[in-house]
Amino acid sequence: MKCRKCAQRAIAHMPEHKLALCRQCYPAWFLEHTERAIHKFKMFTRDDRILVAVSGGKDSLALWHALRELGYEADGFYIDLGIVGADGYSDKSKEACIALSHQLDRPLKIESVREVVGAPIPQIKELTARSSCSACGLIKRYFMNRTSLEMGYHAVATGHNLDDEVAVLFSNTLRWDTEYMSRQFPVLEDREGLKRKVKPFIYFSEKQTTLYTLVKGLPYVRDECPYAAGATTLAFKDIINRLEHESPGTKRRFLDGFLKSRHLFASSNNPHLTPCHICSQPTVGEVCAYCRLVNQVQNRLVRLA
Amino acid sequence: MKCRKCAQRAIAHMPEHKLALCRQCYPAWFLEHTERAIHKFKMFTRDDRILVAVSGGKDSLALWHALRELGYEADGFYIDLGIVGADGYSDKSKEACIALSHQLDRPLKIESVREVVGAPIPQIKELTARSSCSACGLIKRYFMNRTSLEMGYHAVATGHNLDDEVAVLFSNTLRWDTEYMSRQFPVLEDREGLKRKVKPFIYFSEKQTTLYTLVKGLPYVRDECPYAAGATTLAFKDIINRLEHESPGTKRRFLDGFLKSRHLFASSNNPHLTPCHICSQPTVGEVCAYCRLVNQVQNRLVRLA
Repeated sequence: MKCRKCAQRAIAHMPEHKLALCRQCYPAWFLEHTERAIHKFKMFTRDDRILVAVSGGKDSLALWHALRELGYEADGFYIDLGIVGADGYSDKSKEACIALSHQLDRPLKIESVREVVGAPIPQIKELTARSSCSACGLIKRYFMNRTSLEMGYHAVATGHNLDDEVAVLFSNTLRWDTEYMSRQFPVLEDREGLKRKVKPFIYFSEKQTTLYTLVKGLPYVRDECPYAAGATTLAFKDIINRLEHESPGTKRRFLDGFLKSRHLFASSNNPHLTPCHICSQPTVGEVCAYCRLVNQVQNRLVRLA
Repeated sequence: MKCRKCAQRAIAHMPEHKLALCRQCYPAWFLEHTERAIHKFKMFTRDDRILVAVSGGKDSLALWHALRELGYEADGFYIDLGIVGADGYSDKSKEACIALSHQLDRPLKIESVREVVGAPIPQIKELTARSSCSACGLIKRYFMNRTSLEMGYHAVATGHNLDDEVAVLFSNTLRWDTEYMSRQFPVLEDREGLKRKVKPFIYFSEKQTTLYTLVKGLPYVRDECPYAAGATTLAFKDIINRLEHESPGTKRRFLDGFLKSRHLFASSNNPHLTPCHICSQPTVGEVCAYCRLVNQVQNRLVRLA
């Protein structure tokens, strides 16, 4: 197949857009559509400072790179989870983030879960009753929010792509979890100590972000987290890709249809947030879930010592 | 596996209910759960006369039989679509309905599309721009409503099962067709000339209705309609069965979760219905869609003659 713009050999086949592009024309298309999503959802402007949460994977590193190409004030934030796995997962991920930071000549803030909480994710999993994914998600959300507040950023940007969003939406819809559904949106506004969160890649498939990363030769880690939820999410992604293959554009229609109807799920009982008694970060109770987790981890560590 | 009730060899394996039953105990369970659905959604009582729309397939014939077993005043209504197919589809279907009518010793009302409209479904498809499924659905809904009104029945009961309902819900949800979603419910109340519609088998899988039909030795036609929508619905049913297999109870949770949240989709612009200028049946316009279809068919027939 030939590139629609210049007739070179196409490498990006996008039936959902009725489009095929070559490796020269693809990045410009990708950047244009990143910009479109930013505008459509009024995510931020070139006057805002953006903190990009980078994991070392393709999506978040492609996001940091794309925002810089588009001239946005975007810096990186890496959370070192201390996961070793078969191949030094967290160390390799950090190296990829540092490499892109050098390439872009922009600062990368690094925080280590081991240093801040007192134990890395695998040990936290062992010390507490929580699954590693649940503890990890809690800690990452907390770090992102606190760091972006303390460092005066306008918003935290994450690399979630269309496949991620659609899989989550699919899972929430199968259970009709209207509480979660009411909170699924590419922009979550500032509110009572919660920093604005944005997802500029919401309309790109995993293939498209991968292709940008490869064409641009960006450093990134291919490995999935060894604790990755796996089975269920992968099964959902597989189902959705099958539907997409049968009828290109299904993912986008499913997500856009939801975004249009999402106001129906708006929760009337949006709980009021107050500062945590320990750390002052916003919470619905007296002590936030993060401080309770840290407390539990540190008590167990003391008992073990 | 053994029957949970009597330890005979089980033939019904229902992991979603954590239950297995033998051929002696299964029908009682099936009838009990039919009764539960009727009660739960306040479909009708033993004082009401029910018109069961029978197609000759397993679901609707099992429904007529089950309602009689439970002591409800249920009569049959067969619409002869005039579909021949490879093997005389409509004739065979009608014979199965007549056979059950004799077995139950209850009246079966028969209406022929060819006689009433002037042409059978395959010819209507050819004469009009409509797909056979769209014309057929319109005509069946119209016949069911008019006949139940004219003959003074309390409600029309159809054999839609859990797999049917979940496939439709899945399809509507993928498109977020909130208009259709607002109307998907096991009971549609009487309103302005529209007769009450009920679906007592909403919680039975296709396997469960088939099993009841087989165990009870009911006459029924195995063949699917040769025009059956096929591909898309079957693909959805396949996906949903895969999810059900991975996590028994998924179908029921998806449907029940939706039924609980369905009020969110309630349409504010429920159009007012007035009598059709030609036939007096309820419609949103001046002339109802059925009369427009009949008119089109008869005009084309005249031109052909």
